[in-house]
Amino acid sequence: MKNILSTAIIFLSLNVFGQTKEDSIQFAKISTEILNNGKGYNELRDLTKNIGHRLSGSESYEKAVKWAEQKLRDAGADKVWLQEVMIPVWVRGKESLQIQTSNGKWKNLKMLSLGNSEGTGGKDVSGEIIMVRSIEEYDKLSPDQVKDKIVFFNYPFSQSYVETFRGYSDAAKYRTTAASLTAKKGGKFAIIRSLSSAFDNVPHTGAMRYSDDKKIPAVAIGNTTADELAELLQSQKVTAKLNSNCGMKGEKLSHSVIGEITGKKDKNVIVVGGHLDSWDVGEGAHDDGTGIVQSIEVLRTFKNLGIKNNHTIRVVCFANEENGVKGGVQYGKTAKENNEKHLFAIETDAGGFTPRGISLEMDNEKRKQIQSWANLFLPYGVYDFKNTYSGTDLYPLHDMGVPTAELVPDSQRYFDIHHTEEDTFEKVNRRELLLGASTLTQIIYMVDKNW
Amino acid sequence: MKNILSTAIIFLSLNVFGQTKEDSIQFAKISTEILNNGKGYNELRDLTKNIGHRLSGSESYEKAVKWAEQKLRDAGADKVWLQEVMIPVWVRGKESLQIQTSNGKWKNLKMLSLGNSEGTGGKDVSGEIIMVRSIEEYDKLSPDQVKDKIVFFNYPFSQSYVETFRGYSDAAKYRTTAASLTAKKGGKFAIIRSLSSAFDNVPHTGAMRYSDDKKIPAVAIGNTTADELAELLQSQKVTAKLNSNCGMKGEKLSHSVIGEITGKKDKNVIVVGGHLDSWDVGEGAHDDGTGIVQSIEVLRTFKNLGIKNNHTIRVVCFANEENGVKGGVQYGKTAKENNEKHLFAIETDAGGFTPRGISLEMDNEKRKQIQSWANLFLPYGVYDFKNTYSGTDLYPLHDMGVPTAELVPDSQRYFDIHHTEEDTFEKVNRRELLLGASTLTQIIYMVDKNW
Ligand SMILES: [Zn+2]
Ligand SMILES: [Zn+2]
Repeated sequence: MKNILSTAIIFLSLNVFGQTKEDSIQFAKISTEILNNGKGYNELRDLTKNIGHRLSGSESYEKAVKWAEQKLRDAGADKVWLQEVMIPVWVRGKESLQIQTSNGKWKNLKMLSLGNSEGTGGKDVSGEIIMVRSIEEYDKLSPDQVKDKIVFFNYPFSQSYVETFRGYSDAAKYRTTAASLTAKKGGKFAIIRSLSSAFDNVPHTGAMRYSDDKKIPAVAIGNTTADELAELLQSQKVTAKLNSNCGMKGEKLSHSVIGEITGKKDKNVIVVGGHLDSWDVGEGAHDDGTGIVQSIEVLRTFKNLGIKNNHTIRVVCFANEENGVKGGVQYGKTAKENNEKHLFAIETDAGGFTPRGISLEMDNEKRKQIQSWANLFLPYGVYDFKNTYSGTDLYPLHDMGVPTAELVPDSQRYFDIHHTEEDTFEKVNRRELLLGASTLTQIIYMVDKNW
Repeated sequence: MKNILSTAIIFLSLNVFGQTKEDSIQFAKISTEILNNGKGYNELRDLTKNIGHRLSGSESYEKAVKWAEQKLRDAGADKVWLQEVMIPVWVRGKESLQIQTSNGKWKNLKMLSLGNSEGTGGKDVSGEIIMVRSIEEYDKLSPDQVKDKIVFFNYPFSQSYVETFRGYSDAAKYRTTAASLTAKKGGKFAIIRSLSSAFDNVPHTGAMRYSDDKKIPAVAIGNTTADELAELLQSQKVTAKLNSNCGMKGEKLSHSVIGEITGKKDKNVIVVGGHLDSWDVGEGAHDDGTGIVQSIEVLRTFKNLGIKNNHTIRVVCFANEENGVKGGVQYGKTAKENNEKHLFAIETDAGGFTPRGISLEMDNEKRKQIQSWANLFLPYGVYDFKNTYSGTDLYPLHDMGVPTAELVPDSQRYFDIHHTEEDTFEKVNRRELLLGASTLTQIIYMVDKNW
């Protein structure tokens, strides 16, 4: 690969909706500063290797709170504080899933209990496995067919969508509802095929919900294990035995971490954030360590480049996105109580991969204005402003009328590792991570200047 | 990350330059077929794990020739053949680089001799290291200052460019010219900082050229080693000792591998290809195993979907891109001799990462026509048609007036691993690889239909 002709990345002077040559120069400064001097990658190494995964309620989450507080100070925040949040405490404990086939031997399956689920209380629970390919197929079974059985929901993650989030959204209901669907017809517990785009044996956890008083266990197995189990079930009766200790252990007072640089013009707030918690496996690197260090990088870059922000730019490291969204809810509530005016809020919670766009959930006029800035972003590979969702933690703000958004990184690798032991620092590329931070800084620069 | 709203990926009927609703349906079929049934990822595992790296002239390259021939037959090619090419034989052999500091101890440095360079013939060659930061700095040195010295060209890969190819192009002259520059002033050998975007200790090889009769050695060291050496040189005299056995061992008859599906309308040719050879370290996965399996996937997809091509679609697995481009040159020569009319040729040799665009090296009218198809590609994340270079192997065709092109994948990770022991199958993501094959199939479908 040679002979690359250079193309100028600075555009000629334009002046549509406030987009000027000055802006394109500022965009270049932001990108160059972050690609050369960004600290996010080293900070992520520190977070993932020295603290590791950090589920709400765990000791490591409390360490992460102190860590984020310090990093925000180091980045140059004018003000850093902790926001109190009551968060649920879910604990995994020891767990094992075994199957017995016609030869009588028991075999261990690699598995993870789903987050928020109740386990077997340390006792063996066993029964015959029945497999369905979809909820539609399950709906056709009578309670007699399900009673005392283990239901294996073998619904595959669709490879057909170009954006993997669509495959994830399509399959997500299996994770959230499998337990209660199974309980309703008298089954003993549910097994699901992981919500995974990879063809490997890695189980993916993630939040489930009980819609029923009967709280039975639900576990996930990896894709190759699911294929092997499906194959076995074609020719024989298979018994499963689960022993697990997971469950909700009440609530606990904890914190989201917030830092800001004060606006020179007013106290209106622009938020950039991610979630500080993670699931209790792997290192929570792409989900959402990358979002945390990118958000801190935004603040640091404003400081380092001496950009004087009109409005207050606030970094929020939300507590408890994964299994409760209590941090996001509390943030919205507090903003309302304090009568804070939020101009814009953006979350980064889709992995630290090369940025491709910004998803905009706001009225048409504001969306069109941001879309009119697209030419400024194009030299940075950011071209996609068509999506209309925003970060989970921002829904309370959105419901209060705040324009909300989410960074859209390349999605191909995210659901290979999402909520697994494989979500580690090694899966993060330094330049990809920093380019995401650059995009966030650029959009906040434009919003701060023009709104 | 939840609440994704779906957006339709099938566009409404348009009819600009032959872009129709039928085309958008065909694009979706191609993408869905490849994402679900593509064999390229498994084929790449086979190539990289069972054959491995495959430098021109090596036994493993000859194995790769047989492998590619078989894969093209398996994919359904109407015709498969080998094209004779005389290729250079460069062999590495044993090599070591040591440094001695003021404490008198020798220390081994991780290194790779540059491709095509001559070694020390198995003898120790040593001398004092002098460091320059750039060629400009080197040019100011007198022959007296360089005579009998080892010149360390410590020019860093620029992190500032968004597209890493620009950083690579910027630094490439250090690899190609360091030896001859050093020889000209009487130096003993040259050390360069690797052309690497990563902050690690991995040396990158790659082709160098002698512009002088005095063929002295040239070696690359990794970035962290380069930093450590630079630090040492600030405070003390450092002696380097090189012992290496690499060198050119003449020429050899070998082959490019070609397969095609015959056009129903005429014998005009459309080429898609990559290079079958690789450097002699790592597995040549992204460079350019991915290009080879993507090109074969194009042919298979035309067959599997039953698309009847007007023109002949030809997959070319070029020999010897890395250290001679003899395969590309021979292909152009043979095409001329046979009076073959080539309508279009595209190479994929920038890694198997998520596709972002197609670079177009052709007259304005043809470029504009392809750019008018951009809306068809956008739902697949392919938006960038602004670049104007094409694959190295295609220059002979381009010089004959053929419109040439290159797939443009995301570039962030490529130069972390390019030409290193780290360019392995594990660095390739299945979906990213297959999306690239899909983009190639889509552009060839459009060109075949409209040209
Ligand atoms: Zn998340
Ligand atoms: Zn290559």
